[in-house]
Amino acid sequence: MNQEKSMLVVYVEGGRIELRRRARPRKPKGWALLKLRVAGICNTDLELVRGYYGFRGTPGHEFVAEVVEADSPQLVGRRVVGEINVACGDCEWCRRDLGRHCPRRRVLGIAGLDGAFSEYFTLPERNLHDVPEGVTDEEAVFAEPVAAACEILEQVALPRDAEVAVLGDGKLGLLVAQVLASHGARVVLWGRHREKLAIAEATGVRTALVGRLPRARYDWVVEATGSRLGLEQAVGMARPRGTVIVKTTVKGAVRLDTAPVVVNEITLVGSRCGPFEPALALLASRKLRLRELISGEYGLEEAPRAFRAAARRGTLKILLRAAAS
Amino acid sequence: MNQEKSMLVVYVEGGRIELRRRARPRKPKGWALLKLRVAGICNTDLELVRGYYGFRGTPGHEFVAEVVEADSPQLVGRRVVGEINVACGDCEWCRRDLGRHCPRRRVLGIAGLDGAFSEYFTLPERNLHDVPEGVTDEEAVFAEPVAAACEILEQVALPRDAEVAVLGDGKLGLLVAQVLASHGARVVLWGRHREKLAIAEATGVRTALVGRLPRARYDWVVEATGSRLGLEQAVGMARPRGTVIVKTTVKGAVRLDTAPVVVNEITLVGSRCGPFEPALALLASRKLRLRELISGEYGLEEAPRAFRAAARRGTLKILLRAAAS
Repeated sequence: MNQEKSMLVVYVEGGRIELRRRARPRKPKGWALLKLRVAGICNTDLELVRGYYGFRGTPGHEFVAEVVEADSPQLVGRRVVGEINVACGDCEWCRRDLGRHCPRRRVLGIAGLDGAFSEYFTLPERNLHDVPEGVTDEEAVFAEPVAAACEILEQVALPRDAEVAVLGDGKLGLLVAQVLASHGARVVLWGRHREKLAIAEATGVRTALVGRLPRARYDWVVEATGSRLGLEQAVGMARPRGTVIVKTTVKGAVRLDTAPVVVNEITLVGSRCGPFEPALALLASRKLRLRELISGEYGLEEAPRAFRAAARRGTLKILLRAAAS
Repeated sequence: MNQEKSMLVVYVEGGRIELRRRARPRKPKGWALLKLRVAGICNTDLELVRGYYGFRGTPGHEFVAEVVEADSPQLVGRRVVGEINVACGDCEWCRRDLGRHCPRRRVLGIAGLDGAFSEYFTLPERNLHDVPEGVTDEEAVFAEPVAAACEILEQVALPRDAEVAVLGDGKLGLLVAQVLASHGARVVLWGRHREKLAIAEATGVRTALVGRLPRARYDWVVEATGSRLGLEQAVGMARPRGTVIVKTTVKGAVRLDTAPVVVNEITLVGSRCGPFEPALALLASRKLRLRELISGEYGLEEAPRAFRAAARRGTLKILLRAAAS
């Protein structure tokens, strides 16, 4: 067996994406050493390259990997996905099972922890979840963004048959639409791209081309545009006493006319990472259509090209695949 | 008995405040003719003078009046306050007892309906509430803004002993602080004016001078600054998964960095008018200190001077009193 000591990693600094060779990381106690199978490029990764969070290092937080070393021997050889927040385990948030908000958290490939665009990387054993039987790597790599979509259902009491407008037909909007539809909601996906809306339609979601947006029509709106105009548009679509779930993060301030928020008593709910258990259950149920969301696959060694493809308008998910060893 | 046919009204147009004489209004069927006792000038009235809502007419929506004509004979002679939204009574919102959001509503002294800064005015009988025994006019005139403060407790499930930061020591902030404290909340009122904070302290509310605002400290924050900077400040004070109740309406857009809203999963709840029943029960309980909120009293015929006083920095509530007939 060829015991390589070095590995290939993607390294981002000052807007440049490079490939580097590095020593394999050593796993701390309670952590697992993971060998990448496939990773996904997320909009956050594109923002990191643009300098969001002053990032420098190896990004990547959507992945499927194989456990190669672990304190718990039964983990070794398992095919896993993983929660990306590495929390202290000890504070009020961690005790409330909300390590996603632990103030001392590090976040895989985002803050304080080298990410998954790397042949090997590490995560605490408690962050790992087995990929269910019958779920392919190409489906399981969506566990993290599907969890982010599931987070909505953790945060608000969405009635099973509620009518929900999802604004934005990018990757997250397409996932949110499917997740909420699988919950029973009557989803209308509002977007700008006929070909993306067609993906949602194939899953039974109603769609509408963004032109003149409806005013005050929906009790539930999910803002997943990725645009700084999205919030004001979503608020305009909400009925009095309606709820707008806010998924978009953009750098800097956005404009918001608060008068309709106050006068119509609209609730805005910021929503970020979610729990993996319901996401994996959904993946196992095979109710989601994910294959259609993949716009391209590249080897890890082609990362710069893969990032360029991911940044192109109209691209959905770009995957990075580790070389077979 | 001197059957006057004309009456004195305050009239606002193009930034000017005038006194006019007019014919007394005739009450429609199901409505009552009201004779003003005392009215309060609210920040919204000042905004109306500045051209908010393109307003032209007679403002005034905080009042105590005597019923002089009504279809229900038992109402005549009663001392009443009144809900300001005149709803259609027939739509989905009205059926849900949320006429405050009826899309066809008119609003006393704000939209489509002459207001209370007038010797006589009209409202539907169903909008009226008796002033409880022992509650003075000078207390009852606060029924509408106290109801707006009570609205917070209708909208969110605030735990009885929750720690709540109220940001803004103006009239509304002082009322919100007292109302939430009477609910059992541990309120900290953050403001800029020592003399206003002293009013809150006299009611047992803790206070803090706004200097360096605390970051991510409170699970509950009420934004009642009246300033376009208030929302971003309030969001900064909220802990992860915290709730910010938004009371301020300002003309035009405000800046909001949505990243902390999304990353910390903060909920923003727009909050406007509230129910009169709990407000009147609170007034009757005599738990609130309202007298200290009155900065001055003027006769209705002195309205232009009263408005100038109300607009002065540091002024709290200015009352307009009808001449005794």
